[in-house]
Parts: sequence; structure tokens; C-alpha cells
Amino acid sequence: MIPIITLTTDFGTSDAYVAAMKGVMLGIHPEARLVDISHSIKPQNVLQASFVLSTAYQFFPPRTIHLVVVDPGVGTERRAVILRTPLADFVAPDNGVLSYIVREYPAREESPNSSETKLGPGLEAVAITRPEFWRPEVSPTFHGRDVFAPVAAHLSLGRAPADFGEKVTSLAVLPVSLPLRAPDGALSGIILHIDSFGNLITNIRGEMLPEKRRNVTVEIGDRPINGLSRTYAEGYGLLALVGSSGYVEVSLKEGNASALLGVKEGDRVKITPRTPVGE
Amino acid sequence: MIPIITLTTDFGTSDAYVAAMKGVMLGIHPEARLVDISHSIKPQNVLQASFVLSTAYQFFPPRTIHLVVVDPGVGTERRAVILRTPLADFVAPDNGVLSYIVREYPAREESPNSSETKLGPGLEAVAITRPEFWRPEVSPTFHGRDVFAPVAAHLSLGRAPADFGEKVTSLAVLPVSLPLRAPDGALSGIILHIDSFGNLITNIRGEMLPEKRRNVTVEIGDRPINGLSRTYAEGYGLLALVGSSGYVEVSLKEGNASALLGVKEGDRVKITPRTPVGE
Amino acid sequence: MIPIITLTTDFGTSDAYVAAMKGVMLGIHPEARLVDISHSIKPQNVLQASFVLSTAYQFFPPRTIHLVVVDPGVGTERRAVILRTPLADFVAPDNGVLSYIVREYPAREESPNSSETKLGPGLEAVAITRPEFWRPEVSPTFHGRDVFAPVAAHLSLGRAPADFGEKVTSLAVLPVSLPLRAPDGALSGIILHIDSFGNLITNIRGEMLPEKRRNVTVEIGDRPINGLSRTYAEGYGLLALVGSSGYVEVSLKEGNASALLGVKEGDRVKITPRTPVGE
Repeated sequence: MIPIITLTTDFGTSDAYVAAMKGVMLGIHPEARLVDISHSIKPQNVLQASFVLSTAYQFFPPRTIHLVVVDPGVGTERRAVILRTPLADFVAPDNGVLSYIVREYPAREESPNSSETKLGPGLEAVAITRPEFWRPEVSPTFHGRDVFAPVAAHLSLGRAPADFGEKVTSLAVLPVSLPLRAPDGALSGIILHIDSFGNLITNIRGEMLPEKRRNVTVEIGDRPINGLSRTYAEGYGLLALVGSSGYVEVSLKEGNASALLGVKEGDRVKITPRTPVGE
Repeated sequence: MIPIITLTTDFGTSDAYVAAMKGVMLGIHPEARLVDISHSIKPQNVLQASFVLSTAYQFFPPRTIHLVVVDPGVGTERRAVILRTPLADFVAPDNGVLSYIVREYPAREESPNSSETKLGPGLEAVAITRPEFWRPEVSPTFHGRDVFAPVAAHLSLGRAPADFGEKVTSLAVLPVSLPLRAPDGALSGIILHIDSFGNLITNIRGEMLPEKRRNVTVEIGDRPINGLSRTYAEGYGLLALVGSSGYVEVSLKEGNASALLGVKEGDRVKITPRTPVGE
Repeated sequence: MIPIITLTTDFGTSDAYVAAMKGVMLGIHPEARLVDISHSIKPQNVLQASFVLSTAYQFFPPRTIHLVVVDPGVGTERRAVILRTPLADFVAPDNGVLSYIVREYPAREESPNSSETKLGPGLEAVAITRPEFWRPEVSPTFHGRDVFAPVAAHLSLGRAPADFGEKVTSLAVLPVSLPLRAPDGALSGIILHIDSFGNLITNIRGEMLPEKRRNVTVEIGDRPINGLSRTYAEGYGLLALVGSSGYVEVSLKEGNASALLGVKEGDRVKITPRTPVGE
């Protein structure tokens, strides 16, 4: 089996920061396959990184290692961790950047006011504390290169997470905005992410919709869209559909919905059942 | 032989769409080499994708597989196809995204009004119809991940195109603007592509020029350029030359011709023979 | 050992220029590992390419081959060279794009007015002159694809630099702005590079600072910053620190220092010792 390490950062690709991490990893494990997920996470946007990663990681072979470096607190006392799930391993700062991953599994305990989640069954984590796997000199401003990359590379050689430090039982998890359902069945959510096509991806999952999907109205930026389409090519103008990651999204046929509507991430979206007129 | 799969899409690299396709392919064929051609095709610009691909594919080793996903009609009845040429294989929607490739070979039959071209000798194509090579669940909005990527990966394992579906004898080909030659020898063409340097790549090929290349005037945006240069470093200001893909292009020495001239793709260009003054 | 070839260019990633080079290299050496350093060097900015490369190359395994194609003089009489250092090999035009690399080693001889540096001990270079390693047809506008890429690939197969051409004893080196130290200990430098976070990386190296780093004031764009931080997460607002490549840089906590200050590359920076008030 050829081990795969993916990379998700807010480093961009103009500078050589990503390349330095890759050089370090290939020095430790020359056979590792390195695959970029995204380096265009907005600077310090931990939650965006978490979301983007969550839309891709399950399409990689089991036991792929996902290296995530969006790390505004680099060099401070924030922990560095390895998270092992039934499907994959994650190497990342413990700053919430794994929120969407951790939330896919039932927590042992979670308080809405706490920023920590006690890991439930199936999840294991360790704090990265043993410096023998790091680069000999660690810059306080670039743990991606000096700590996370070498740890991911050593992990890809088959070492156990426990070799890298002490077990931890909880991880930082940021509050993720979940849609609310009103008594009349209406769903209130937000725009979670705007992709490079300008598609508005909401936090409302397809499973939450009524079975007869044509019987809903999606409202975003005061523009009602009646019924859900199956593809981007149906009808005219704005359309709503369940996208490839399972979330309801709003799209403009052959255009950019974000530019048309002038909306932004965090803006409200509402899905209401329609009064069936006959049928 | 290590099989190579290239990727050309309009997905950008901010989101994880490209990574999801790569994850799927590495799950099926862990040894495949994945090489990005471009993910910055303008959204839905099938013809630009075709052109960009046509400038690179022949530099890859024989039998490289080129995966092209610019697919505004995803999920509709547009076909998905594999095209096999003497040099390479292409996996793509049948929406014209292979126009520049197909046009390199003589067609069996072509009507100027038809959007389909009957494939001539040397070209074989199949419609991708057998779902056993797809991901078990196919999103109607992301065949790149659920159909094209797994098909390309299985193809790279050595399967024959015929394993993936029925043979087809014609493919969608979009009208490609060809230059016209006037009775006086003048050539009228258009700007086909503006590259990231701001070079204006026209649809006039170097082979169409008179042998004495100094004896032409290139006019673009009302600015005449006398004679053709050999390199980007000659003379001052605007220059014209035959670029590395064989097309006449206009460039600004140490600058951006596109920004200077304010022209855009599709704008007219004219090349006229000059009255030789002595020589 | 799996040979690695890195790529640094000003080609961008929208067009297929980088992919064409990769295709050529994989045709010659299918096992070579290709790693992008940056393709977002500003067009023709030889010195930026040199700087960006210098911040990454030492993190790659020994004997990595670094292909650098920022080449405004392509097709002219400027030389193409291979530089072999104790750590790595470089394949590049001889136009100063290796300035930061060559300057890491003592020169045999250097005149401040000359644009050439006689290579000192430890460095070897050859001019790439033997066309049997190039592509059969060489475009005068794309040596990256037709000369540099095939030479790098053949070099990665184990050939000696001397196989590619005649030894040369000096290379083009551009003047690099070095900081000045005034009699009172104040350091005057410039902004060398602005990274994608908006961090302002100066040409003043951490080693030049007094040991008590808190006792300095960093002035950039008329905004004094007192004392040096250790991480990006300390204090409020603007901060100065020694970054991961060893240079003093100015950063805005959770923001973009470049946007806030409106400064640009080449702008002045000053670091002065502070009068210790007690301590």
C-alpha cells in the first residue's frame, strides 16, 4: 500500500511554504504520495478549512493521512494533535480545525458552552509532544514545516499515534451553525461556503428536506426559488439543488449566484414547505 | 510503465473538488501518476478547456490518459465518452470539450451546420454507460468524482475502452474559428486565448505565413506591428512572433500586451503582406 | 533513491505551460517525483524567484534537482546552466535567477559593479550546450519545455553535469540589497518580499540583531514596533519577529500588515536599539 498524505493550509501557492513542508516529508518518506486538498483557505479561517476538508477526505482510500495547517496560534500553548478515526488519520493543531470531522461521530459528552468535545467511541487522539520526530530546530512561526510535516511523514511510515505523545480524551471543537426547524416545518440555515463557481452551499442537508422535494421554496437574499432541481442545467436563472456533498445549495445556471445575489458566507437561508396547489 | 492521468477542469483549486477526484482515482489505482494541466478554465468554458489541453497533451508520454471535466450539462442526457487517439486517451463529457483534439484528425464527414463530427480513421470512441465502473452512488451534480475519475482510473489499469460502454461513431465538436485568407494574401483571424503573461495567442498558425516572415504586418487593436520577432526579448514594445504552440501571438516586451491594448478573446487580428521596399 | 525535481516558474497555473514541462520530464524519467515550489513568481521577476527558491530548497532531500524557469531572455544568447552545490542541483537560465543560492557560498572573486560572480569552492557549473539532451525541435520562446525540462529529467537519471556542456567558472548574480549598520547600531534595510498573508519580510536577518531582542524598535512605514515577538499570536496589532526563513518580518495579528500599512517590496525598514529604561 502506498501511503497518501493530503495537505490543507491557508498558505497559498505563491510562496514556498507548502513546498518546504513537502520537501521535509519526502526526506523522511520518499514513497509517500502527497495530494493537495486546498491551500486557498482564507488566512486563519479554521472553520473553512474544516469544512473544505470534510467534503473531500472520505473520497480518499482508508488510512489516508490528512495534514491540516491553519494555525494562527502557532508557537503558543495550543496543542498539536493526531486524531485517528475509523477511516483516516488527521495531523493538525488542536484549534477547532477538525470540528467537522469530530462532529461526524457521536461525542461522549458535549456542553454547548464548552469549546472542547470529549471524544466518543471510534475516535482516538494524542497530543504531539515527543520532539524526536520533529525537525531538530523548530521555528516558533512554522510548525507546519518543523512539527506537523515530519510527524505526518513518520506516521505514514507506519508508526502508531501513541509513539508521538500522550493520549488525550477531548479535542477543541468550534460551534458549527446548525439549521433550525420551526414548528411549521420551515428550516432556517445559513450560507456555509461559497465555492469558486459562486454556488451558495448552505448548512441544510438534503436528508432534512421533505421527500417530495419539489414542494419547497428556498429563500436566499429575498429571492424565492420554487422547488429543487436535480442538476445545474435545469430551468432558467437561479436554482436550488442538493449538491455533491449532500448540502442544499443555490446556483445560477451558467452563471455565478454569489455575484448575482451579492450575498456572503453566514447570510441566512430559509426553506419552507409549499402549500400543494392540487397535485 | 507508470500510467499518467492528467486533469483539466474549471473547478479552481480553492475547493476540494479536484482533491475528491484524485482521492477516488488513487483508491482504484494507487500507482497512477496524477498531473494537473489546469483547473483555472473559466467556468463552463468548454472551448477554452479544449484549447488549453491541445497545447499540452502531445508533450506527455504516449497513452497518457487525459481527464477533462468542464461539464455544465452534468446530470443531463449529454453523453460521457472515452476517445482513443493514436497518441492518448481522453475521458470527458461529449460536449465539445474535445473539439481541438478531434480536429487534429481528418473527419470522416463533417457538416458545417452540425455540432457532431463523424470520427475518421485512427479515432475510436465509446459512450460511458456501464455503471459497474462508477462510484456506487452517483451525484447528479458531480460526475467528475463519481463517473469520470473512476473510469479514468480503471482505464489506467489497462482495461479496453470497449469495457466501459458502446462504441460511438461521432462526437460533439464545437465550431472553431478558423482564419480567412483574402485574395491579396491577407489573413483575418481572432484572439483565441490570452495567457497569464498577457500574450495574445491568435488562431493563425505559423505555417500559414509567407516564408519571409519579416514581410508581414500584424494588426491587433489598431496597432500595427511590422515583421515577426523570433523571441520575446527583441526590439521594444509590442512584438509578434510564432509562439511555442505554433500560433502567431502578440506580446509586449517585459510587459502585458493584453493590459496595454485592452483587447479580449475573440477580438480581430489581421496579418497583411508588406510591400517589400527594396530588400 | 527516488529523484525529486522541483519547479519554480512565472508561468501561472491557468495555462498548460507547466504541464507541458512535466509531460516532457515524465516521458524521459517516469519515476521522477515532481514538486511545485511556485508558479506565481511575478512575470520576469528573476530576483523574486531566486528569493522564493532560497527559502525552500534546503528543506528537500540532498541532491534534489531544482528547475527554475523565469526567463525573459529565452531564445537570446543568455546561457542556460546547471549549478551543482554541495546540497542540490539547479537547472536554470544564467540570468541571476540563482543569485540567492550562489550568495550562500563564498565567491572566489566579486566586483560590486560586475553582474558576474566567480564561483568559489564547493560550486560547479556547466553551460547547457549539448542539444542531444534537448527536445528535437526547440521553440525559441519555450526553453522551459524544450531545453530545461529534458535536461533536468536526464540529470535526474544520474548523468553528470559535465555531460550537458562545458564547465563555466562564473555565473550571473544580481545585486541583492543588503542591510546597512550605522555607527549607533541602527540597521537600515528594505522589504524583500510580501507573502500571501501580507507579512513583510525584510532583508535583515535575525543573526544581526542584538541578543536582547526586546531592546529594539522596528520602523516600517513610519509605524514603530517596540520589541520583537516570538510568535504571530502575541500582543495586539502590528508585531515584528524573526520568521521561519531567518529574516525579520512585520506582521499584523490576525490581519494583513501589507494592506494595513500600504507598503510595497523595496520600501525601507529600520531597526534601532532602544535606550533601556532601567531593566
